[in-house]
Amino acid sequence: MNLKTFILDVPDFPTKGVIFRDITPLLKNSKALRFTENALLELLGNVKIDKVVGMESRGFFFAPMLAAKLNAGFVPVRKSGKLPGKTIQQYYDLEYGTDALEIHFDSIIKGDKVLVHDDVLATGGTAQATCRLIEKMGGEIVQCNFLLELDFLGGKEKLLNYQVKSLLHY
Amino acid sequence: MNLKTFILDVPDFPTKGVIFRDITPLLKNSKALRFTENALLELLGNVKIDKVVGMESRGFFFAPMLAAKLNAGFVPVRKSGKLPGKTIQQYYDLEYGTDALEIHFDSIIKGDKVLVHDDVLATGGTAQATCRLIEKMGGEIVQCNFLLELDFLGGKEKLLNYQVKSLLHY
Repeated sequence: MNLKTFILDVPDFPTKGVIFRDITPLLKNSKALRFTENALLELLGNVKIDKVVGMESRGFFFAPMLAAKLNAGFVPVRKSGKLPGKTIQQYYDLEYGTDALEIHFDSIIKGDKVLVHDDVLATGGTAQATCRLIEKMGGEIVQCNFLLELDFLGGKEKLLNYQVKSLLHY
Repeated sequence: MNLKTFILDVPDFPTKGVIFRDITPLLKNSKALRFTENALLELLGNVKIDKVVGMESRGFFFAPMLAAKLNAGFVPVRKSGKLPGKTIQQYYDLEYGTDALEIHFDSIIKGDKVLVHDDVLATGGTAQATCRLIEKMGGEIVQCNFLLELDFLGGKEKLLNYQVKSLLHY
């Protein structure tokens, strides 16, 4: 199945000059949805995973279902102020200024084998911050996997210490 | 499995006097995650579903995996400005003022059998607005299902035209 036929290019979103890769046509197609789920699992291979960490909001589409298939737990990483319990924070750079990501302080146990999943790898700032949060808690990052990767933004350079795999490249 | 043992009461979140029911302990437990997935599917029973609609952000945890299991597509309902394509909007009342939800205008086809899923049914405003969006496009709502329902807020009263089922009641 050629998944790229289910990715829609939306020019000038969210800002002028940016081409947004919209994955919602893939999500709404039942066959493409299940194909993607299986393909993401194949990227990982037959490895034991304890926790799948997904980033707000679009990382939530696939991370929990990957967790369920892997007999792992799911842990959300969210923007500041969204998680109700005690959290640890990681700041990361935006184009202008900084932002913070949070994770519950007790969501990863020392030694947990972790799969990090997000829909898109762009500049890599979110994924890098997420990996730092997981490592602060003693988690071991087995793979960072993405539905699609914007190669020209070089996000992989921020994740040199990790195995990075993406289903689609742009 | 008693799922309530995986729901954590967080007092005074997001505002003073509110007890927030935190589902993240359930998500991070692999057995509870898969048990919940199956229990939500059992709430629905053996019915044909074309689309599962989930609401931002916590509705995204289970709605896509329910879609994958039901051989259905997944459609996100998001807050204003988040979806990249052409959308239709529905305003709904908040405690103070109003807010809008959006769905892609071509995400539901006339006659689609739709399962609406969110993590929590509280006042019902989000679910009611979501149902209106689906019906504007000609979708038929088969069930609104929730992981947990805050009975004392009476959200069900806003969904009298629909079958409403929740796994847990508070």
